[in-house]
Amino acid sequence: MTRTVLESKSKTVVIGFDEPFCVIGERINPTGRKLLAAQLEAGDFSTVEKDALEQVACGAMVLDVNAGVVYNSNPNPNETEPPLMGKMIELVQGLVDVPLCIDSSVPGALEKGLELAEGRPLLNSVTGEEERLEAILPLVKKYNVPVVAISNDDTGISEDPDVRFAVAKKIVERAADFGIPAHDIVVDPLVMPVGAMATAGRQVFTLVAKLREELGVNTTCGASNISFGLPNRHGINAAFLPMAIGAGMTSAIMNPVRPVEMEAVNAANFLMNHDPNGGKWIGFAKVLEAVKEGMPFPEAAKAAIASGAGRSGRRGGRRRA
Amino acid sequence: MTRTVLESKSKTVVIGFDEPFCVIGERINPTGRKLLAAQLEAGDFSTVEKDALEQVACGAMVLDVNAGVVYNSNPNPNETEPPLMGKMIELVQGLVDVPLCIDSSVPGALEKGLELAEGRPLLNSVTGEEERLEAILPLVKKYNVPVVAISNDDTGISEDPDVRFAVAKKIVERAADFGIPAHDIVVDPLVMPVGAMATAGRQVFTLVAKLREELGVNTTCGASNISFGLPNRHGINAAFLPMAIGAGMTSAIMNPVRPVEMEAVNAANFLMNHDPNGGKWIGFAKVLEAVKEGMPFPEAAKAAIASGAGRSGRRGGRRRA
Repeated sequence: MTRTVLESKSKTVVIGFDEPFCVIGERINPTGRKLLAAQLEAGDFSTVEKDALEQVACGAMVLDVNAGVVYNSNPNPNETEPPLMGKMIELVQGLVDVPLCIDSSVPGALEKGLELAEGRPLLNSVTGEEERLEAILPLVKKYNVPVVAISNDDTGISEDPDVRFAVAKKIVERAADFGIPAHDIVVDPLVMPVGAMATAGRQVFTLVAKLREELGVNTTCGASNISFGLPNRHGINAAFLPMAIGAGMTSAIMNPVRPVEMEAVNAANFLMNHDPNGGKWIGFAKVLEAVKEGMPFPEAAKAAIASGAGRSGRRGGRRRA
Repeated sequence: MTRTVLESKSKTVVIGFDEPFCVIGERINPTGRKLLAAQLEAGDFSTVEKDALEQVACGAMVLDVNAGVVYNSNPNPNETEPPLMGKMIELVQGLVDVPLCIDSSVPGALEKGLELAEGRPLLNSVTGEEERLEAILPLVKKYNVPVVAISNDDTGISEDPDVRFAVAKKIVERAADFGIPAHDIVVDPLVMPVGAMATAGRQVFTLVAKLREELGVNTTCGASNISFGLPNRHGINAAFLPMAIGAGMTSAIMNPVRPVEMEAVNAANFLMNHDPNGGKWIGFAKVLEAVKEGMPFPEAAKAAIASGAGRSGRRGGRRRA
């Protein structure tokens, strides 16, 4: 059974075939968030703090941290992103106790994150592009961390799932040459929008099963891409996640502050027999009741944790000896 | 590719591996509905009429008709149920144009339904019990109709999925002895409540795939049983349906008047590439918008059909020559 072990200073999270689906919170990312980008350039980390706390309260088990801001004052991210990544990693791991996912296209930023992250973070990401393989795999080996492997290469993103599988296989093989085991590779098979490609859903379900059976790897994806451009996106996402989980997907980089999607993940965990006795489902149902009565989801989730009714309920009743 | 063909007087519905999921409306059934039972004994069919119209408006492709009332005036259903089934079948097929599913444990009621139903109804059901096999399979052969085969036998309902598979196999083999082909058997692998049996979900997903691969049969289930006894049942159902569809389930006997479950089915159809260009999803999203603004789902669905925006939209624009 494939197990990818992530750690913070104090907490271990396992991505695995026999584990609850691993929700990796995607919010700490300035891409497409102009206000957050401006705040980060100005040294204002208040949104990062809020996003860290809210995502963990809502059920994120890992937090992605992306520092991809192009500064107005300096357009070279190779200079600006590594120190910003360092600051953000230190800030987030000081606030919450979940493992981190260090997310950048700038190798210097990835290395800065690896230097500063406590425990065993997930590195995001390597692709099948030669330049990336040469730059990233040595970092993965040096720091002994797991890595997200995205199924595109120098020819771009193929619409052919067999090509995407072949790219994933190549990455796993190249990693093996560095002594990196398959259980430390988390493959992203790439989710296309179903509104643009009618086979997008089925491709992912087939690929996930094949990646698992033939390469023995865990999988992840940017889940919300499936519904890009469509009305009622939550409804598509909330069906896609259980279907992907049923097909064998073991994690996703997603927005945990959306109750519809988290409801789908929690229900799917229960149906996969990854929620013994439904304890987590029953706690989550109470949170949803509060949401239906008008409370914002992060507040309802935090209140449940504080009252011991939520997902950390088992710790709520502890008393000092 | 397995295709189970159902017909009303004017409409054909195919249950099949390459078809949209077939929603069989479960509402016309007095079991557990005291008011409806009393109405039926008193000859009042107003609820049946309402249920027929609402279910079809909301997206039911087939309607189950069950006349299982135990009359206060005559406790012998062998006497009372056949004529009631006859009346209900005639009423429903006079109101709506979808194929029917004739549902009874009384062989005389099934035969009465078969005599009166126009087209090619689905018979519900045979089990692996010897007495039922001997009583029902000749009817299936005589009327050349497809039949729901429930995976229990004289030993009851097994908690072991291998036993349930073996019962389904036995029914398919016995049907073959009568000259009934596998594509006219729709197996119900039996859905247990996940709150009582933690493996209930996984059992169904595994069984559905195996029934499809090894016996080549279509499948159905009483979907809502999965969430029996749990809080926020819609949330469990809405994850179970896409997961079952992803595993290969091709129909369910369910309540189509619940928007959350129908949203899940419509999204899953889209993700299985059974909704070309997402036309049905986009129409359904408009209905959901009206529901969010406070309109009851059946009314919103009917309004969409009337305006040509809903699932029957293609017919909305037709004009007489």
